[in-house]
Amino acid sequence: MGMGGLVLLPLAPPPINPHSSSPLGLLLSPPTFKSFKFNNLRSKSSQSRTTSITMASIKVHGVPMSTATMRVLAALYEKDLDFELIPVDMRAGAHKQEPFLSLNPFGQIPALQDGDLTLFESRAITEYIAEEYSEKGEKLLCPGCKKVKATTNVWLQVEGQQFDPIASKIAFERIFKGMFGMTTDPAAVEELEGKLVKVLDIYEARLAKSDFLACDCFTLADLHHLPAIHYLMGTDSKKLFESRAKVCDWVKKITARPAWAKVVALQKQ
Amino acid sequence: MGMGGLVLLPLAPPPINPHSSSPLGLLLSPPTFKSFKFNNLRSKSSQSRTTSITMASIKVHGVPMSTATMRVLAALYEKDLDFELIPVDMRAGAHKQEPFLSLNPFGQIPALQDGDLTLFESRAITEYIAEEYSEKGEKLLCPGCKKVKATTNVWLQVEGQQFDPIASKIAFERIFKGMFGMTTDPAAVEELEGKLVKVLDIYEARLAKSDFLACDCFTLADLHHLPAIHYLMGTDSKKLFESRAKVCDWVKKITARPAWAKVVALQKQ
Repeated sequence: MGMGGLVLLPLAPPPINPHSSSPLGLLLSPPTFKSFKFNNLRSKSSQSRTTSITMASIKVHGVPMSTATMRVLAALYEKDLDFELIPVDMRAGAHKQEPFLSLNPFGQIPALQDGDLTLFESRAITEYIAEEYSEKGEKLLCPGCKKVKATTNVWLQVEGQQFDPIASKIAFERIFKGMFGMTTDPAAVEELEGKLVKVLDIYEARLAKSDFLACDCFTLADLHHLPAIHYLMGTDSKKLFESRAKVCDWVKKITARPAWAKVVALQKQ
Repeated sequence: MGMGGLVLLPLAPPPINPHSSSPLGLLLSPPTFKSFKFNNLRSKSSQSRTTSITMASIKVHGVPMSTATMRVLAALYEKDLDFELIPVDMRAGAHKQEPFLSLNPFGQIPALQDGDLTLFESRAITEYIAEEYSEKGEKLLCPGCKKVKATTNVWLQVEGQQFDPIASKIAFERIFKGMFGMTTDPAAVEELEGKLVKVLDIYEARLAKSDFLACDCFTLADLHHLPAIHYLMGTDSKKLFESRAKVCDWVKKITARPAWAKVVALQKQ
Protein backbone atom coordinates (compact mmCIF):
# COMPACT_ATOMS: atom_id res chain seq x y z
CA MET A 1 0.00 0.00 0.00
CA GLY A 2 3.03 2.25 0.06
CA MET A 3 2.20 4.01 3.36
CA GLY A 4 5.39 5.83 4.19
CA GLY A 5 4.77 7.28 7.62
CA LEU A 6 8.41 6.89 8.63
CA VAL A 7 9.95 8.36 5.49
CA LEU A 8 11.63 11.69 6.06
CA LEU A 9 10.50 14.22 3.51
CA PRO A 10 13.33 16.10 1.83
CA LEU A 11 11.43 19.36 1.55
CA ALA A 12 10.32 21.71 4.26
CA PRO A 13 6.85 23.20 3.80
CA PRO A 14 6.82 26.58 2.05
CA PRO A 15 7.30 29.52 4.41
CA ILE A 16 4.01 30.72 5.80
CA ASN A 17 3.24 34.27 6.81
CA PRO A 18 0.48 34.03 9.40
CA HIS A 19 -0.38 37.70 8.95
CA SER A 20 -1.24 37.44 5.28
CA SER A 21 -4.30 35.87 3.75
CA SER A 22 -4.08 33.89 0.54
CA PRO A 23 -4.94 35.70 -2.69
CA LEU A 24 -8.17 33.72 -2.66
CA GLY A 25 -9.20 35.60 0.44
CA LEU A 26 -8.71 32.77 2.89
CA LEU A 27 -7.16 33.72 6.20
CA LEU A 28 -5.77 30.63 7.84
CA SER A 29 -6.62 30.68 11.51
CA PRO A 30 -3.59 30.91 13.85
CA PRO A 31 -3.85 27.49 15.52
CA THR A 32 -3.63 25.77 12.18
CA PHE A 33 -1.54 28.15 10.13
CA LYS A 34 1.46 25.86 9.99
CA SER A 35 -0.39 22.82 8.78
CA PHE A 36 -3.72 21.12 9.09
CA LYS A 37 -3.65 17.46 9.96
CA PHE A 38 -6.71 15.39 9.25
CA ASN A 39 -7.29 11.98 10.65
CA ASN A 40 -10.33 10.41 9.14
CA LEU A 41 -10.18 7.44 11.43
CA ARG A 42 -11.12 8.45 14.94
CA SER A 43 -9.20 5.67 16.66
CA LYS A 44 -6.03 6.49 14.75
CA SER A 45 -6.56 10.18 15.41
CA SER A 46 -5.99 9.93 19.15
CA GLN A 47 -3.01 7.66 18.56
CA SER A 48 -1.40 10.01 16.08
CA ARG A 49 -1.38 12.82 18.58
CA THR A 50 0.91 10.82 20.83
CA THR A 51 3.39 9.32 18.40
CA SER A 52 5.06 10.37 15.19
CA ILE A 53 4.91 6.82 13.86
CA THR A 54 1.33 7.27 12.67
CA MET A 55 1.94 10.76 11.28
CA ALA A 56 0.09 11.13 8.01
CA SER A 57 2.38 10.12 5.18
CA ILE A 58 0.26 12.01 2.68
CA LYS A 59 0.91 15.72 2.41
CA VAL A 60 -1.14 18.03 0.23
CA HIS A 61 0.36 21.42 -0.54
CA GLY A 62 -2.46 23.77 -1.48
CA VAL A 63 -5.29 25.96 -0.21
CA PRO A 64 -8.88 24.88 0.41
CA MET A 65 -10.31 27.63 -1.82
CA SER A 66 -8.51 26.37 -4.93
CA THR A 67 -10.63 24.19 -7.19
CA ALA A 68 -7.70 21.91 -8.02
CA THR A 69 -6.85 21.47 -4.33
CA MET A 70 -10.52 20.77 -3.52
CA ARG A 71 -10.52 17.99 -6.15
CA VAL A 72 -7.65 16.25 -4.38
CA LEU A 73 -9.12 16.79 -0.90
CA ALA A 74 -12.42 15.26 -2.04
CA ALA A 75 -10.63 12.13 -3.20
CA LEU A 76 -8.70 11.84 0.08
CA TYR A 77 -11.86 12.19 2.17
CA GLU A 78 -13.72 9.66 -0.01
CA LYS A 79 -10.87 7.25 0.65
CA ASP A 80 -10.89 7.98 4.37
CA LEU A 81 -7.15 8.61 4.34
CA ASP A 82 -5.07 10.48 6.86
CA PHE A 83 -3.39 13.51 5.35
CA GLU A 84 -1.81 16.79 6.18
CA LEU A 85 -2.79 19.97 4.32
CA ILE A 86 0.17 22.30 4.11
CA PRO A 87 -0.99 25.78 3.09
CA VAL A 88 0.88 27.56 0.33
CA ASP A 89 1.09 31.32 0.81
CA MET A 90 0.13 32.30 -2.71
CA ARG A 91 -0.14 35.97 -1.82
CA ALA A 92 3.57 35.91 -1.01
CA GLY A 93 4.19 33.99 -4.25
CA ALA A 94 5.33 30.85 -2.42
CA HIS A 95 4.03 28.71 -5.30
CA LYS A 96 6.41 30.43 -7.71
CA GLN A 97 9.49 29.89 -5.56
CA GLU A 98 11.49 27.07 -4.05
CA PRO A 99 10.84 24.85 -2.29
CA PHE A 100 7.41 24.66 -3.95
CA LEU A 101 8.84 24.59 -7.50
CA SER A 102 10.61 21.35 -6.63
CA LEU A 103 7.19 19.89 -5.93
CA ASN A 104 5.61 21.28 -9.09
CA PRO A 105 7.79 23.07 -11.65
CA PHE A 106 4.67 24.69 -13.12
CA GLY A 107 4.21 26.63 -9.88
CA GLN A 108 0.58 25.63 -9.45
CA ILE A 109 -1.21 24.14 -6.47
CA PRO A 110 -1.78 21.45 -5.39
CA ALA A 111 1.17 19.12 -5.11
CA LEU A 112 1.01 15.83 -3.24
CA GLN A 113 3.68 13.93 -1.38
CA ASP A 114 3.10 10.34 -0.38
CA GLY A 115 6.25 8.97 1.18
CA ASP A 116 8.96 9.58 -1.40
CA LEU A 117 6.54 10.05 -4.28
CA THR A 118 5.76 13.60 -5.39
CA LEU A 119 2.92 14.32 -7.80
CA PHE A 120 1.20 17.34 -9.30
CA GLU A 121 -1.77 17.96 -11.63
CA SER A 122 -4.89 17.39 -9.54
CA ARG A 123 -6.44 14.82 -11.91
CA ALA A 124 -3.29 12.70 -11.89
CA ILE A 125 -3.23 12.90 -8.10
CA THR A 126 -6.84 11.73 -7.69
CA GLU A 127 -6.23 8.81 -10.05
CA TYR A 128 -3.19 7.82 -8.01
CA ILE A 129 -5.23 7.99 -4.79
CA ALA A 130 -8.04 5.92 -6.30
CA GLU A 131 -5.69 3.21 -7.56
CA GLU A 132 -3.09 3.15 -4.80
CA TYR A 133 -5.73 3.02 -2.08
CA SER A 134 -8.30 1.01 -4.01
CA GLU A 135 -9.15 -1.09 -0.94
CA LYS A 136 -9.85 1.88 1.32
CA GLY A 137 -13.01 3.98 1.67
CA GLU A 138 -15.27 4.53 -1.32
CA LYS A 139 -14.52 3.09 -4.74
CA LEU A 140 -13.73 5.98 -7.06
CA LEU A 141 -13.19 3.88 -10.15
CA CYS A 142 -15.79 1.30 -11.07
CA PRO A 143 -14.23 -2.16 -10.77
CA GLY A 144 -16.09 -3.32 -13.88
CA CYS A 145 -14.92 -4.63 -17.21
CA LYS A 146 -12.54 -2.98 -19.67
CA LYS A 147 -15.52 -1.32 -21.34
CA VAL A 148 -16.47 0.48 -18.14
CA LYS A 149 -12.86 1.51 -17.58
CA ALA A 150 -12.55 2.92 -21.09
CA THR A 151 -15.88 4.75 -20.76
CA THR A 152 -14.79 6.20 -17.42
CA ASN A 153 -11.67 7.51 -19.14
CA VAL A 154 -13.86 9.16 -21.79
CA TRP A 155 -15.85 11.04 -19.14
CA LEU A 156 -12.71 11.94 -17.21
CA GLN A 157 -11.47 13.56 -20.42
CA VAL A 158 -14.84 15.23 -21.01
CA GLU A 159 -14.53 16.96 -17.64
CA GLY A 160 -10.97 18.09 -18.31
CA GLN A 161 -11.39 19.10 -21.94
CA GLN A 162 -15.05 20.10 -22.36
CA PHE A 163 -16.55 21.08 -19.01
CA ASP A 164 -13.73 22.58 -16.97
CA PRO A 165 -12.32 25.07 -19.51
CA ILE A 166 -15.77 26.70 -19.62
CA ALA A 167 -16.90 26.25 -16.01
CA SER A 168 -13.60 27.51 -14.57
CA LYS A 169 -13.77 30.66 -16.67
CA ILE A 170 -17.33 31.35 -15.49
CA ALA A 171 -16.25 30.84 -11.88
CA PHE A 172 -13.35 33.22 -12.50
CA GLU A 173 -15.68 35.86 -13.97
CA ARG A 174 -18.45 35.52 -11.40
CA ILE A 175 -16.48 34.85 -8.19
CA PHE A 176 -12.71 35.14 -8.27
CA LYS A 177 -12.58 38.43 -10.20
CA GLY A 178 -14.57 40.01 -7.37
CA MET A 179 -12.15 38.64 -4.80
CA PHE A 180 -9.25 40.21 -6.70
CA GLY A 181 -10.99 43.58 -7.07
CA MET A 182 -11.67 43.01 -10.76
CA THR A 183 -15.01 43.45 -12.55
CA THR A 184 -17.11 40.66 -14.06
CA ASP A 185 -17.48 40.93 -17.85
CA PRO A 186 -21.18 40.19 -18.53
CA ALA A 187 -20.58 39.57 -22.27
CA ALA A 188 -17.91 36.99 -21.47
CA VAL A 189 -20.25 35.29 -18.98
CA GLU A 190 -23.05 35.19 -21.55
CA GLU A 191 -20.79 33.63 -24.17
CA LEU A 192 -19.42 31.08 -21.71
CA GLU A 193 -22.88 30.18 -20.45
CA GLY A 194 -23.96 29.58 -24.04
CA LYS A 195 -21.16 27.04 -24.31
CA LEU A 196 -21.93 25.49 -20.92
CA VAL A 197 -25.56 24.95 -21.94
CA LYS A 198 -24.42 22.75 -24.81
CA VAL A 199 -22.28 20.64 -22.51
CA LEU A 200 -25.05 20.34 -19.93
CA ASP A 201 -27.55 19.26 -22.60
CA ILE A 202 -25.19 16.38 -23.41
CA TYR A 203 -24.88 15.58 -19.69
CA GLU A 204 -28.68 15.58 -19.40
CA ALA A 205 -28.93 12.97 -22.17
CA ARG A 206 -26.09 10.96 -20.67
CA LEU A 207 -27.59 10.97 -17.18
CA ALA A 208 -30.85 9.61 -18.59
CA LYS A 209 -28.87 6.47 -19.47
CA SER A 210 -26.74 6.00 -16.34
CA ASP A 211 -26.97 7.22 -12.75
CA PHE A 212 -23.58 8.90 -12.95
CA LEU A 213 -21.49 10.10 -15.89
CA ALA A 214 -19.30 7.05 -16.44
CA CYS A 215 -21.66 4.32 -15.22
CA ASP A 216 -24.15 3.65 -12.41
CA CYS A 217 -21.46 4.25 -9.76
CA PHE A 218 -20.01 7.52 -8.50
CA THR A 219 -16.48 7.75 -9.94
CA LEU A 220 -13.68 10.27 -10.33
CA ALA A 221 -15.44 11.40 -13.52
CA ASP A 222 -18.16 12.86 -11.30
CA LEU A 223 -15.89 13.92 -8.43
CA HIS A 224 -13.68 16.04 -10.69
CA HIS A 225 -16.68 18.29 -11.43
CA LEU A 226 -17.39 19.12 -7.79
CA PRO A 227 -15.17 22.17 -7.22
CA ALA A 228 -16.42 24.16 -10.23
CA ILE A 229 -20.03 23.11 -9.61
CA HIS A 230 -19.68 24.16 -5.96
CA TYR A 231 -18.72 27.68 -7.00
CA LEU A 232 -21.21 27.97 -9.86
CA MET A 233 -24.12 26.86 -7.65
CA GLY A 234 -23.44 30.01 -5.60
CA THR A 235 -24.02 32.21 -8.66
CA ASP A 236 -26.80 32.87 -11.18
CA SER A 237 -25.28 30.12 -13.34
CA LYS A 238 -26.97 27.60 -11.06
CA LYS A 239 -30.13 27.99 -13.15
CA LEU A 240 -28.37 26.16 -15.98
CA PHE A 241 -27.94 23.12 -13.73
CA GLU A 242 -31.31 23.35 -11.97
CA SER A 243 -33.33 23.64 -15.18
CA ARG A 244 -32.17 20.22 -16.33
CA ALA A 245 -33.87 17.48 -14.30
CA LYS A 246 -31.20 14.79 -14.57
CA VAL A 247 -28.31 17.23 -14.17
CA CYS A 248 -30.09 18.77 -11.17
CA ASP A 249 -30.48 15.35 -9.51
CA TRP A 250 -26.87 14.50 -10.26
CA VAL A 251 -25.61 17.78 -8.75
CA LYS A 252 -27.71 17.14 -5.64
CA LYS A 253 -26.34 13.61 -5.29
CA ILE A 254 -22.68 14.43 -5.73
CA THR A 255 -22.67 17.60 -3.62
CA ALA A 256 -24.50 15.76 -0.80
CA ARG A 257 -21.68 13.27 -0.32
CA PRO A 258 -20.21 13.40 3.22
CA ALA A 259 -16.67 13.60 1.81
CA TRP A 260 -17.60 16.72 -0.15
CA ALA A 261 -19.18 18.30 2.93
CA LYS A 262 -15.80 17.93 4.64
CA VAL A 263 -14.05 19.77 1.80
CA VAL A 264 -16.56 22.63 1.97
CA ALA A 265 -16.22 22.75 5.77
CA LEU A 266 -12.45 23.21 5.36
CA GLN A 267 -13.09 26.47 3.53
CA LYS A 268 -14.88 27.82 6.57
CA GLN A 269 -12.09 27.09 9.03
CA MET B 1 -8.29 -9.10 -26.49
CA GLY B 2 -11.80 -8.05 -27.53
CA MET B 3 -11.23 -8.24 -31.28
CA GLY B 4 -14.70 -7.95 -32.69
CA GLY B 5 -14.24 -8.53 -36.41
CA LEU B 6 -17.56 -10.31 -36.77
CA VAL B 7 -19.66 -7.81 -34.84
CA LEU B 8 -22.07 -5.89 -37.04
CA LEU B 9 -21.77 -2.19 -36.41
CA PRO B 10 -25.08 -0.45 -35.78
CA LEU B 11 -24.07 2.75 -37.49
CA ALA B 12 -23.41 3.41 -41.14
CA PRO B 13 -20.47 5.69 -41.87
CA PRO B 14 -21.43 9.35 -42.22
CA PRO B 15 -22.53 10.29 -45.74
CA ILE B 16 -19.58 11.32 -47.88
CA ASN B 17 -19.72 13.82 -50.67
CA PRO B 18 -16.82 12.96 -52.98
CA HIS B 19 -16.99 16.38 -54.58
CA SER B 20 -16.35 18.35 -51.42
CA SER B 21 -13.10 18.69 -49.57
CA SER B 22 -12.96 18.71 -45.79
CA PRO B 23 -12.83 22.10 -44.06
CA LEU B 24 -9.21 21.35 -43.33
CA GLY B 25 -8.46 21.46 -47.04
CA LEU B 26 -8.01 17.74 -47.50
CA LEU B 27 -9.57 16.34 -50.64
CA LEU B 28 -9.99 12.62 -50.29
CA SER B 29 -8.93 10.92 -53.49
CA PRO B 30 -11.72 9.00 -55.28
CA PRO B 31 -10.44 5.45 -54.82
CA THR B 32 -10.42 5.87 -51.08
CA PHE B 33 -13.20 8.33 -50.45
CA LYS B 34 -15.51 5.80 -48.84
CA SER B 35 -13.02 4.51 -46.34
CA PHE B 36 -9.33 3.85 -45.93
CA LYS B 37 -8.41 0.42 -44.67
CA PHE B 38 -5.00 -0.09 -43.16
CA ASN B 39 -3.53 -3.47 -42.53
CA ASN B 40 -0.31 -3.17 -40.66
CA LEU B 41 0.32 -6.87 -40.89
CA ARG B 42 1.14 -7.79 -44.44
CA SER B 43 -0.02 -11.40 -44.18
CA LYS B 44 -3.40 -10.39 -42.86
CA SER B 45 -3.64 -7.67 -45.46
CA SER B 46 -3.85 -10.04 -48.41
CA GLN B 47 -6.33 -12.18 -46.54
CA SER B 48 -8.58 -9.26 -45.71
CA ARG B 49 -8.98 -8.37 -49.33
CA THR B 50 -10.64 -11.72 -49.99
CA THR B 51 -12.90 -12.17 -46.99
CA SER B 52 -14.94 -9.95 -44.72
CA ILE B 53 -14.14 -12.15 -41.72
CA THR B 54 -10.81 -10.43 -41.15
CA MET B 55 -12.18 -6.94 -41.79
CA ALA B 56 -10.59 -4.55 -39.35
CA SER B 57 -12.71 -4.45 -36.21
CA ILE B 58 -11.31 -1.05 -35.29
CA LYS B 59 -12.90 1.90 -37.02
CA VAL B 60 -11.69 5.46 -36.61
CA HIS B 61 -14.07 8.21 -37.68
CA GLY B 62 -12.02 11.31 -38.40
CA VAL B 63 -9.76 13.09 -40.87
CA PRO B 64 -5.95 12.80 -41.06
CA MET B 65 -5.47 16.58 -40.80
CA SER B 66 -7.10 16.79 -37.37
CA THR B 67 -4.68 16.81 -34.46
CA ALA B 68 -6.99 14.69 -32.30
CA THR B 69 -7.42 12.13 -35.08
CA MET B 70 -3.64 12.05 -35.64
CA ARG B 71 -3.13 11.28 -31.96
CA VAL B 72 -5.31 8.18 -32.27
CA LEU B 73 -3.76 7.09 -35.57
CA ALA B 74 -0.28 7.34 -34.07
CA ALA B 75 -1.29 4.99 -31.25
CA LEU B 76 -2.83 2.50 -33.69
CA TYR B 77 0.30 2.46 -35.86
CA GLU B 78 2.55 2.08 -32.82
CA LYS B 79 0.47 -0.94 -31.83
CA ASP B 80 0.60 -2.37 -35.36
CA LEU B 81 -3.18 -2.78 -35.39
CA ASP B 82 -5.48 -3.18 -38.36
CA PHE B 83 -7.98 -0.37 -38.60
CA GLU B 84 -10.26 1.42 -40.98
CA LEU B 85 -10.29 5.21 -41.19
CA ILE B 86 -13.76 6.43 -42.07
CA PRO B 87 -13.59 10.06 -43.19
CA VAL B 88 -16.06 12.53 -41.69
CA ASP B 89 -17.21 15.20 -44.13
CA MET B 90 -16.82 18.13 -41.79
CA ARG B 91 -17.43 20.67 -44.55
CA ALA B 92 -20.92 19.21 -44.90
CA GLY B 93 -21.26 19.27 -41.12
CA ALA B 94 -21.43 15.49 -40.85
CA HIS B 95 -19.84 15.67 -37.38
CA LYS B 96 -22.76 17.75 -36.10
CA GLN B 97 -25.44 15.35 -37.36
CA GLU B 98 -26.52 11.78 -36.95
CA PRO B 99 -25.19 9.20 -37.26
CA PHE B 100 -21.97 10.82 -36.03
CA LEU B 101 -23.59 12.33 -32.93
CA SER B 102 -24.40 8.82 -31.76
CA LEU B 103 -20.67 8.14 -31.82
CA ASN B 104 -19.74 11.38 -30.05
CA PRO B 105 -22.51 13.63 -28.70
CA PHE B 106 -20.02 16.53 -28.60
CA GLY B 107 -19.82 16.43 -32.40
CA GLN B 108 -16.04 16.34 -32.49
CA ILE B 109 -13.70 14.00 -34.30
CA PRO B 110 -12.37 11.40 -33.81
CA ALA B 111 -14.60 8.62 -32.55
CA LEU B 112 -13.47 5.02 -32.33
CA GLN B 113 -15.41 1.80 -32.65
CA ASP B 114 -13.85 -1.46 -31.59
CA GLY B 115 -16.42 -4.20 -31.91
CA ASP B 116 -19.39 -3.01 -29.88
CA LEU B 117 -17.40 -0.46 -27.91
CA THR B 118 -17.64 3.19 -28.96
CA LEU B 119 -15.28 5.79 -27.55
CA PHE B 120 -14.50 9.46 -28.07
CA GLU B 121 -11.98 11.98 -26.67
CA SER B 122 -8.67 11.19 -28.35
CA ARG B 123 -6.69 10.81 -25.11
CA ALA B 124 -9.19 8.30 -23.71
CA ILE B 125 -9.00 6.39 -27.00
CA THR B 126 -5.20 6.16 -26.99
CA GLU B 127 -5.22 4.94 -23.39
CA TYR B 128 -7.75 2.26 -24.32
CA ILE B 129 -5.57 1.18 -27.26
CA ALA B 130 -2.45 1.07 -25.09
CA GLU B 131 -4.11 -1.02 -22.38
CA GLU B 132 -6.38 -3.24 -24.46
CA TYR B 133 -3.60 -4.14 -26.88
CA SER B 134 -0.76 -4.06 -24.37
CA GLU B 135 0.82 -7.18 -25.86
CA LYS B 136 0.90 -5.84 -29.42
CA GLY B 137 3.45 -3.55 -31.09
CA GLU B 138 5.26 -0.93 -29.05
CA LYS B 139 4.67 -0.41 -25.34
CA LEU B 140 2.99 2.96 -24.91
CA LEU B 141 2.74 2.81 -21.14
CA CYS B 142 5.84 1.92 -19.19
CA PRO B 143 5.25 -1.41 -17.43
CA GLY B 144 7.09 -0.20 -14.35
CA CYS B 145 6.04 0.27 -10.76
CA LYS B 146 3.15 2.34 -9.42
CA LYS B 147 5.46 5.32 -9.15
CA VAL B 148 6.17 5.27 -12.89
CA LYS B 149 2.47 4.87 -13.64
CA ALA B 150 1.53 7.82 -11.44
CA THR B 151 4.29 9.95 -12.95
CA THR B 152 3.13 9.02 -16.46
CA ASN B 153 -0.35 10.22 -15.49
CA VAL B 154 1.15 13.52 -14.33
CA TRP B 155 2.77 14.11 -17.72
CA LEU B 156 -0.32 12.98 -19.59
CA GLN B 157 -2.18 15.69 -17.69
CA VAL B 158 0.60 18.21 -18.36
CA GLU B 159 0.13 17.69 -22.11
CA GLY B 160 -3.66 18.03 -21.88
CA GLN B 161 -3.79 20.93 -19.41
CA GLN B 162 -0.56 22.89 -19.89
CA PHE B 163 0.90 22.25 -23.35
CA ASP B 164 -2.04 21.62 -25.65
CA PRO B 165 -4.24 24.61 -24.77
CA ILE B 166 -1.34 26.87 -25.82
CA ALA B 167 0.14 24.84 -28.69
CA SER B 168 -3.25 24.21 -30.33
CA LYS B 169 -4.06 27.91 -30.29
CA ILE B 170 -0.70 28.74 -31.93
CA ALA B 171 -1.34 26.10 -34.60
CA PHE B 172 -4.78 27.61 -35.14
CA GLU B 173 -3.33 31.11 -35.51
CA ARG B 174 -0.39 30.15 -37.69
CA ILE B 175 -1.85 27.37 -39.85
CA PHE B 176 -5.57 26.67 -39.66
CA LYS B 177 -6.69 30.31 -39.83
CA GLY B 178 -4.96 30.56 -43.21
CA MET B 179 -6.73 27.46 -44.42
CA PHE B 180 -10.08 28.97 -43.46
CA GLY B 181 -9.31 32.32 -45.13
CA MET B 182 -8.77 34.05 -41.79
CA THR B 183 -5.84 36.23 -40.78
CA THR B 184 -3.22 35.37 -38.17
CA ASP B 185 -3.21 37.72 -35.17
CA PRO B 186 0.49 38.47 -34.48
CA ALA B 187 -0.22 39.83 -30.99
CA ALA B 188 -2.06 36.64 -30.04
CA VAL B 189 0.82 34.54 -31.38
CA GLU B 190 3.34 36.58 -29.38
CA GLU B 191 1.35 36.18 -26.17
CA LEU B 192 0.89 32.45 -26.73
CA GLU B 193 4.55 31.93 -27.56
CA GLY B 194 5.46 33.69 -24.33
CA LYS B 195 3.41 31.08 -22.50
CA LEU B 196 4.80 28.20 -24.54
CA VAL B 197 8.36 29.24 -23.68
CA LYS B 198 7.59 28.76 -19.99
CA VAL B 199 6.25 25.28 -20.61
CA LEU B 200 9.21 24.33 -22.81
CA ASP B 201 11.67 25.57 -20.18
CA ILE B 202 10.08 23.10 -17.76
CA TYR B 203 10.28 20.36 -20.41
CA GLU B 204 13.96 21.17 -20.95
CA ALA B 205 14.66 20.64 -17.23
CA ARG B 206 12.55 17.49 -17.17
CA LEU B 207 14.27 16.00 -20.23
CA ALA B 208 17.63 16.52 -18.55
CA LYS B 209 16.48 13.97 -15.96
CA SER B 210 14.79 11.35 -18.16
CA ASP B 211 14.98 10.43 -21.85
CA PHE B 212 11.25 11.03 -22.33
CA LEU B 213 8.71 13.04 -20.36
CA ALA B 214 7.34 10.32 -18.08
CA CYS B 215 10.41 8.09 -17.80
CA ASP B 216 13.19 6.68 -19.98
CA CYS B 217 10.67 5.04 -22.32
CA PHE B 218 8.52 6.58 -25.03
CA THR B 219 4.95 6.66 -23.68
CA LEU B 220 1.58 8.16 -24.51
CA ALA B 221 2.72 11.24 -22.59
CA ASP B 222 5.16 11.90 -25.45
CA LEU B 223 2.92 10.63 -28.24
CA HIS B 224 0.08 12.98 -27.33
CA HIS B 225 2.33 15.94 -28.18
CA LEU B 226 3.08 14.80 -31.73
CA PRO B 227 0.21 16.38 -33.68
CA ALA B 228 0.66 19.91 -32.34
CA ILE B 229 4.45 19.66 -32.57
CA HIS B 230 4.14 18.44 -36.17
CA TYR B 231 2.23 21.57 -37.13
CA LEU B 232 4.33 23.99 -35.09
CA MET B 233 7.59 22.64 -36.56
CA GLY B 234 6.30 23.88 -39.92
CA THR B 235 6.06 27.45 -38.60
CA ASP B 236 8.36 30.05 -37.06
CA SER B 237 7.45 28.65 -33.66
CA LYS B 238 9.89 25.83 -34.31
CA LYS B 239 12.66 28.08 -33.03
CA LEU B 240 11.21 27.70 -29.54
CA PHE B 241 11.76 23.94 -29.73
CA GLU B 242 15.10 24.03 -31.56
CA SER B 243 16.71 26.53 -29.21
CA ARG B 244 16.37 24.12 -26.28
CA ALA B 245 18.86 21.26 -26.64
CA LYS B 246 16.96 18.56 -24.75
CA VAL B 247 13.59 19.56 -26.18
CA CYS B 248 15.14 19.62 -29.66
CA ASP B 249 16.52 16.07 -29.24
CA TRP B 250 13.19 14.88 -27.87
CA VAL B 251 11.27 16.37 -30.81
CA LYS B 252 13.69 14.69 -33.23
CA LYS B 253 13.33 11.33 -31.49
CA ILE B 254 9.54 11.29 -31.28
CA THR B 255 8.88 12.68 -34.77
CA ALA B 256 11.32 10.16 -36.29
CA ARG B 257 9.29 7.18 -35.13
CA PRO B 258 8.11 4.98 -38.04
CA ALA B 259 4.54 4.99 -36.71
CA TRP B 260 4.49 8.77 -36.82
CA ALA B 261 5.84 8.80 -40.38
CA LYS B 262 2.80 6.72 -41.36
CA VAL B 263 0.43 9.28 -39.84
CA VAL B 264 2.14 12.10 -41.73
CA ALA B 265 2.07 10.05 -44.94
CA LEU B 266 -1.72 9.70 -44.58
CA GLN B 267 -2.07 13.46 -44.86
CA LYS B 268 -0.43 13.34 -48.26
CA GLN B 269 -2.75 10.72 -49.72
